[in-house]
Amino acid sequence: MLIIIGERINATRKPIREALERRDAQFFIEEARKQEQAGAHFIDVNAGTDANSEMENLPWLVEIIQDEVSVPLCFDSANEKALEKALKVYKKKELIINSFTAEEAKIKALLPLAKEWNASIVGLAMGEAGIPQTGQERMKLVDRLLEAVHRYDIPEERLFIDPLVIPVGTDSTQGKVFLETLRSIKDKFPKVKTVCGLSNVSFGLPNRRLLNRTFVVLCLGFGLDAAIIDPLDRELMASIYAAEALLGIDEFCMKYLSAFREGRLNT
Amino acid sequence: MLIIIGERINATRKPIREALERRDAQFFIEEARKQEQAGAHFIDVNAGTDANSEMENLPWLVEIIQDEVSVPLCFDSANEKALEKALKVYKKKELIINSFTAEEAKIKALLPLAKEWNASIVGLAMGEAGIPQTGQERMKLVDRLLEAVHRYDIPEERLFIDPLVIPVGTDSTQGKVFLETLRSIKDKFPKVKTVCGLSNVSFGLPNRRLLNRTFVVLCLGFGLDAAIIDPLDRELMASIYAAEALLGIDEFCMKYLSAFREGRLNT
Repeated sequence: MLIIIGERINATRKPIREALERRDAQFFIEEARKQEQAGAHFIDVNAGTDANSEMENLPWLVEIIQDEVSVPLCFDSANEKALEKALKVYKKKELIINSFTAEEAKIKALLPLAKEWNASIVGLAMGEAGIPQTGQERMKLVDRLLEAVHRYDIPEERLFIDPLVIPVGTDSTQGKVFLETLRSIKDKFPKVKTVCGLSNVSFGLPNRRLLNRTFVVLCLGFGLDAAIIDPLDRELMASIYAAEALLGIDEFCMKYLSAFREGRLNT
Repeated sequence: MLIIIGERINATRKPIREALERRDAQFFIEEARKQEQAGAHFIDVNAGTDANSEMENLPWLVEIIQDEVSVPLCFDSANEKALEKALKVYKKKELIINSFTAEEAKIKALLPLAKEWNASIVGLAMGEAGIPQTGQERMKLVDRLLEAVHRYDIPEERLFIDPLVIPVGTDSTQGKVFLETLRSIKDKFPKVKTVCGLSNVSFGLPNRRLLNRTFVVLCLGFGLDAAIIDPLDRELMASIYAAEALLGIDEFCMKYLSAFREGRLNT
């Protein structure tokens, strides 16, 4: 089954930033619960990009949300100080840290935390020079991400690699590059998981939701393990249920049939 | 680009059978034109399964439709006598004959016609014993289809292979078997085209249109060249436009952007 990481609590979105400013705990509890109910396996928590406020906001969000949902959280930060404060208040067993890159400074700052707290961690196929254009170059960065988890003795199963997608509106070959990199990762490192924050693929094009839900289907066909998405997008979720049934990931189409009975396929 | 074969003129559908019985030429002209307008590259013409009436109906349909559309036709029959009569009245250069199987009787009856009339031909991965369950067995039938076109000196480019999909509601591994067979065909015989009459995949399950449009996206990801579909299904067509943009088949997303401007993506 695709692991769904609910992306809605993200302080780069205005309503979230405003709710953070007014310390609206109930708003965040609702946002977390709605996502769990819609099928999220993890709730992503992003407290913004300002390092100082993140130090306050990330642990606050974690504290108010964690007891209100039964699923674990995904700490969306590359700021080790904010992560450390949030980790200290976190009580659940499972956790994803989202994310580090193939840059040595990030590896040294974040992997010891993942090791110490037994967390899974998202690694981006991105280095000092940004995101490479070709799949081959991205695979070199994937090797560096693997080398990093080995160095810190983190099991490969706990690494989620995001090959990073460049918008097809900028370069129409980039969707295929991403998909083929996904497949190469699964072929070369069968234990490693793959993840995708998919909405970047449609940047600059009209009808982005159509492109995003079509892309997640293609990604599933190429072996994607996890996706950072909005589980309240009913059409997106219906596409995922359908793709899982068609790919035999959903044995006897059980999940598809219950989604139908629960009215989740009426888009 | 995916080659779209418009499937609507099919006498196994009741309104089509009735229009045939009342010799309603205008109805068929409209059906053909609507499909061309919606993006069909070929118009499939199926005059039913009764051998006697097919001999009358297939040539009649071909005569009334061919001058009213600019796209070529796809003769949907395995009855060589009906095909021969239809071929004699057909005036366009391009043509697909749909379909033969790996059965020797079908090969001997249909391939000489395809050779004589320079037609493309659909070959089904099906033999005397029906559709095999495994991809490996289906690939053996694919080899026989290839052997057949070679024997009649038909270029491989003119063979469209349909690996045949068994409903996932019956056996949830069959979607994957189909997709992997698609990929094996493209790997082993890069010149051969693949085709899919996809609606069988969803047989017996609810919300079939969702499954069908999701399956066509997966098929495109695995290298499908042509699909026998209803081009008036707007959501299906929008999924195809999106998948082509995401897979880089649609260079610079030109076709996606014109579909958007023409209002074809508003589903």
